[in-house]
Amino acid sequence: MASKEMKKNIVLASGTFDLLHLGHVKFLEEAKRAGGGNAKLIVIVARDSTVEKRKGTKPIMPEDQRRALVESLKVVDEAVLGYKDFNLEMTIEKIKPNIIAVGHDQTGIEKAVRNLVNEKSLDVQIVKIGRFGKEELNSSSKILRKIVERYRR
Amino acid sequence: MASKEMKKNIVLASGTFDLLHLGHVKFLEEAKRAGGGNAKLIVIVARDSTVEKRKGTKPIMPEDQRRALVESLKVVDEAVLGYKDFNLEMTIEKIKPNIIAVGHDQTGIEKAVRNLVNEKSLDVQIVKIGRFGKEELNSSSKILRKIVERYRR
Repeated sequence: MASKEMKKNIVLASGTFDLLHLGHVKFLEEAKRAGGGNAKLIVIVARDSTVEKRKGTKPIMPEDQRRALVESLKVVDEAVLGYKDFNLEMTIEKIKPNIIAVGHDQTGIEKAVRNLVNEKSLDVQIVKIGRFGKEELNSSSKILRKIVERYRR
Repeated sequence: MASKEMKKNIVLASGTFDLLHLGHVKFLEEAKRAGGGNAKLIVIVARDSTVEKRKGTKPIMPEDQRRALVESLKVVDEAVLGYKDFNLEMTIEKIKPNIIAVGHDQTGIEKAVRNLVNEKSLDVQIVKIGRFGKEELNSSSKILRKIVERYRR
């Protein structure tokens, strides 16, 4: 028993991570915790083109810098850019996660993951991560708003 | 010889670290490298009140969040908030760094450190860290400008 290799859970999380803030770090920490003490956390960082298609504007920080910054966090084992055409099935096939963590505001991704997991009967647990604190500035859009209001004059 | 404990350099770096970006991470990585493979990197994160006194406005992100975000970086061993009245001598006495790293744009801090080290004949090496890359968005003020320009409409 003692010689049996401990199974290492692979947790997959994703996001844009524009204007990195403490809410992002707490989301990633909670995601990793869902995989247990020995888990490996792999983070998919959304491409500029994917964000532009979804939200109509590119992120403030370019994709390479967003990816490198996320990978420089203690909690992150590996950060990779998403597929150019965001492709959930290919991502899951490549990374083979046991757990996929979705944030409280990632309802679109959550739905897509649930559909795919059901359809293909994948052995993947979906874990929903709560919102963190009531503190101000735990979202990129709130940070943007504060900056714009301050410098509007 | 083999049993002799290897001396661990303590590197001290400081900054505001508002709107954390890759330039900050590269500055901190280079600072730690200056202390050799075994170095410990301690980062002083400027208080909101100190920044307000110097620049006339508070940072966008509050001090607790800036400190916690800096400490969540792989390269950082410890991040602490500065003294309420920024006091260089007390900081150095408490942390006992072998090396103080200053950024290319920290000329005020550099001068103050040099004066104190000379005056007190402290055994501290001052290392100046270069600017990173010609890439866009490696400074908080450039990021602010981009945001304000985009959302001005």
